[in-house]
Amino acid sequence: MGSDQIQLRAADRETAAQEGDHLKLRLWLRALTCIQMIETAIRARLRAEFDTTLPRFDVLAQLDAAKSPLTMGELSARLMVTSGSVTGLVDSMETDDLVERKTHPADRRSTLISMTQRGRALFDRMAPVHAGWVDELMAELSPAEAATLHGLLGRLKHSVSAAGMGEP
Amino acid sequence: MGSDQIQLRAADRETAAQEGDHLKLRLWLRALTCIQMIETAIRARLRAEFDTTLPRFDVLAQLDAAKSPLTMGELSARLMVTSGSVTGLVDSMETDDLVERKTHPADRRSTLISMTQRGRALFDRMAPVHAGWVDELMAELSPAEAATLHGLLGRLKHSVSAAGMGEP
Repeated sequence: MGSDQIQLRAADRETAAQEGDHLKLRLWLRALTCIQMIETAIRARLRAEFDTTLPRFDVLAQLDAAKSPLTMGELSARLMVTSGSVTGLVDSMETDDLVERKTHPADRRSTLISMTQRGRALFDRMAPVHAGWVDELMAELSPAEAATLHGLLGRLKHSVSAAGMGEP
Repeated sequence: MGSDQIQLRAADRETAAQEGDHLKLRLWLRALTCIQMIETAIRARLRAEFDTTLPRFDVLAQLDAAKSPLTMGELSARLMVTSGSVTGLVDSMETDDLVERKTHPADRRSTLISMTQRGRALFDRMAPVHAGWVDELMAELSPAEAATLHGLLGRLKHSVSAAGMGEP
């Protein structure tokens, strides 16, 4: 019992000393939980309603946002994943006629990835439905709360960039 | 030019009509970006400083937080991933003597996963360093901002749960 009490006191000291750190660690864990819950919900809905996956949706969303074809490097940077893992994804999406590869007009060694008509049609059907799910998941947040959260996440994004640890 | 103008007006209508949705969609995309930036930074640091991966760190962190052995189902629920993908991870961590499987005392068909001494020692070395990285990445947030963000993410978490789409 004596040694248990010593351990408890040691744990209390640690809690007291690192209260600042603990808030940010708890913040990080909660942010991660929120994002995973939302991703899980969106994954399930994409599967059920469009028979597709979140990575495929993300590729189409990035090509849509870019408003022009992207190289594999640009696409993987926007998706924040390695080129290796995007290559297989793009291969299978090309097989299903959702994206196509073309030779880069200015650099024949490089290829550009763009949406096919079929990919564009699928994305145009999914995008408003996806936005509706996000709205549904965040229904309890008032516009003011959403705006405050958006602003604070902007501050966080800046902080992460400034820490110089955020690059792949 | 006439048809371009019609398309532009259509886009403007959409923007005006869905301004509420757009805020939450932008909020979701920004949250995702923040989390991906932090994960990318932590992945790189875990690799460089502890020669380990984020999924392995997450398994140890969940076993630590649970304060008792977990079944595969409990572990995968806490990690918010499918049991299938945790099985391979636990296999390789067992090979490296970081976790061990034991027969569940109350249910012989079930196994319990716990940290080995080696896994515990590794986690105890990593946990404070990991918390330091999170603190470094969030350095620009004041304690008040971090507390507000933590509170709003709590509201978001509740909203996602209430939407009934957050379960795996």
